[in-house]
Amino acid sequence: MENFLEKLTSDQFAEVERQFKIYHNGVHEIIPAEEFKNKLAKSIFLSKPLKIKLGLDPSAPDVHIGHTVVLNKLKQFQENGHVIQLIIGDFTGKIGDPTGKSVARKQLTNEQVKHNAQTYFEQFGKVLDMKKVELFYNSTWLSSLNLEDIIRLSASITVARLLERNDFSERLSTGKPISLHEFFYPLMQGYDSVELESDVELGGTDQHFNVLMGRHLQEFFDKEKQVVILLPLLEGLDGIEKMSKSKHNYIGVNDEPSDMYGKTMSIPDELIIKYFNLATDLDVHEKESIASDLTEGKLHPRDAKMYLGKTLVRMYHGLEASNQAEDHFKAVFQKGTIPDDIPEVVWEGESTALILDLLVELTLLPSKSEARKMIENGGVRVNGEKVMDHTLSITVENDLIIQVGKRKFVKLTT
Amino acid sequence: MENFLEKLTSDQFAEVERQFKIYHNGVHEIIPAEEFKNKLAKSIFLSKPLKIKLGLDPSAPDVHIGHTVVLNKLKQFQENGHVIQLIIGDFTGKIGDPTGKSVARKQLTNEQVKHNAQTYFEQFGKVLDMKKVELFYNSTWLSSLNLEDIIRLSASITVARLLERNDFSERLSTGKPISLHEFFYPLMQGYDSVELESDVELGGTDQHFNVLMGRHLQEFFDKEKQVVILLPLLEGLDGIEKMSKSKHNYIGVNDEPSDMYGKTMSIPDELIIKYFNLATDLDVHEKESIASDLTEGKLHPRDAKMYLGKTLVRMYHGLEASNQAEDHFKAVFQKGTIPDDIPEVVWEGESTALILDLLVELTLLPSKSEARKMIENGGVRVNGEKVMDHTLSITVENDLIIQVGKRKFVKLTT
Repeated sequence: MENFLEKLTSDQFAEVERQFKIYHNGVHEIIPAEEFKNKLAKSIFLSKPLKIKLGLDPSAPDVHIGHTVVLNKLKQFQENGHVIQLIIGDFTGKIGDPTGKSVARKQLTNEQVKHNAQTYFEQFGKVLDMKKVELFYNSTWLSSLNLEDIIRLSASITVARLLERNDFSERLSTGKPISLHEFFYPLMQGYDSVELESDVELGGTDQHFNVLMGRHLQEFFDKEKQVVILLPLLEGLDGIEKMSKSKHNYIGVNDEPSDMYGKTMSIPDELIIKYFNLATDLDVHEKESIASDLTEGKLHPRDAKMYLGKTLVRMYHGLEASNQAEDHFKAVFQKGTIPDDIPEVVWEGESTALILDLLVELTLLPSKSEARKMIENGGVRVNGEKVMDHTLSITVENDLIIQVGKRKFVKLTT
Repeated sequence: MENFLEKLTSDQFAEVERQFKIYHNGVHEIIPAEEFKNKLAKSIFLSKPLKIKLGLDPSAPDVHIGHTVVLNKLKQFQENGHVIQLIIGDFTGKIGDPTGKSVARKQLTNEQVKHNAQTYFEQFGKVLDMKKVELFYNSTWLSSLNLEDIIRLSASITVARLLERNDFSERLSTGKPISLHEFFYPLMQGYDSVELESDVELGGTDQHFNVLMGRHLQEFFDKEKQVVILLPLLEGLDGIEKMSKSKHNYIGVNDEPSDMYGKTMSIPDELIIKYFNLATDLDVHEKESIASDLTEGKLHPRDAKMYLGKTLVRMYHGLEASNQAEDHFKAVFQKGTIPDDIPEVVWEGESTALILDLLVELTLLPSKSEARKMIENGGVRVNGEKVMDHTLSITVENDLIIQVGKRKFVKLTT
């Protein structure tokens, strides 16, 4: 590829630097970074958008903000006029697991693939402008490859190279079987890039080997090689494991505003900056100043999380919903005041009751001993007043409010 | 597969044993032998011939008696009414070496494949009745396999299993590259057996892995599994390396009778029994008695080799030629007399010449110094008389015979 950087005017060069800074923010690695700058230069010099590829597994269409790391990166490219290529890996989806051993990789019908793709697009639409996205199903080209094509394709790669992939080498060395067909999945993913002449492919760090395969095969087929952008994997709410539905540590893009906000408040402080960088659409300068304010102690982690939660709700539910979610949180959790929308219960018992009986009968706590403990820990309030004595007797009146812990409220009606 | 052995009459059982003994003679291994007996029993019980498969590489059509080891085995099957399946591996031949690294495996055109196959058949016709042989080109079925077929096929085998093949494991451990496409060749060879529902596949011991692949894939495709017969590799004239054209240690089936006979006489004594067993069409009892006579010293190795040479010439040139070859050998090499059919040269030089000049001018020896050495070693005769003096002057007469070494003769005409 010729050097386009040296052909640019200084304004054009500044534009390359501006875009590069945006795309570079929050990524794990760009391979190779210099070639990526030159691709940007070529795009600007020739006024031709880059083709930015993302491959999708059609078997798991539930989108959470772990997935949005890559979507937000795509959005940055889209905002600068580049073209997004979304590829539904329907070919492999339809094959499933030919050994029949993996329950996870079961064979999908055409209808299921279409349905899952549709589910993706609806959720992706919350981040990307889907009207401008190019959609592909890789069965279009893969299903017509014959044995001769495949032999030529596989002549481009050595067995040793494939065994470099972490999971393969580990399985071979520990005696766990690798079926030969598994060697094809990276090749097929790479061949998609050949077919679509992609300029850039995005993927999580766990996709390192597979996305580089596209670069390798493009070279083998005498095409311009794609650049690879690896994005960090986002840890879930527990702060330890990769965010995933099965680990129950995720924030779904379809979560209700109050859940989304509340879950965000529960992430460990160490992850705040990473979530801002990877999961939000904020301007890169704003992200940087939040990061430095946090590090220097000018911004309290709680306040940063509140802004993070508000931002996520705004991204997926709009500005109004984000303001409401914030108000709700402040009302309940911060000021210790009583929110407006608490559940009302009609009290049909005696007009006087012991506090322990009341807490158990209203199912606010599971047993009298639990109720007693909660009172001793200062976790029970009646009309906003902390209850200090577990033998307290209460006179039940209309609109009496009982609060347990930070979030549980009941208003009694007589 | 059900047990057919227990369904047979005692006559039928004796026929299984008779055939088994013939096929078992000289082989390296039958995998598994019991299953093979049962296949023979089935064939006899149902009066249905077995399908005996041999795969051929279309790039090397020169047939020598190293190749006939397997042809002779096929002939035994043919003589008992079984059907020979010859498969020209034209699919791989037409692909060649997609990495472009191997000169040996260059891409063949359709015409070359056809021509090479024809060359095979002509030479094979010296052993087999080609009218009864079934011929196949594996491109017929392989070229229509698509990626989905191939993924299912390769799901049947693990990478670890493929790496068990000696040459693969050796190359992987010594860091020599294995291209992924090389993994397909055994799979394709195996798939041929699935397609043709072969009962038995023959191969040299160096084909151990590949022929077993047919058995593996037939099982994967719910077919009756083939039995594998491995035949020893025949050492060449040097007695050390596998017979091959490139090693110049071979006896070609198209060699002239006297060459064929003479080359046979040059093999090391230790190989006589192996050559009889593997390269001749003699009855198994005759082979056994030759072997025991040789071992017990009742048969002189030279006489055994003469019979071997005569047998080989008879197989490829007929009875008359074999008798002539024997007579020729006896005349030249045994009695020390002069053969009938020596080349005649018209002498146009002086009527008197020095022996050294004569030997060089007749190109019997390359230089005078070589000629002098040969005389000193007793290797030159004139009219049957050994020349003792290298300064000898010869009077050239009509029909003067000059002999150099054991085999070179010239008769002068004046």
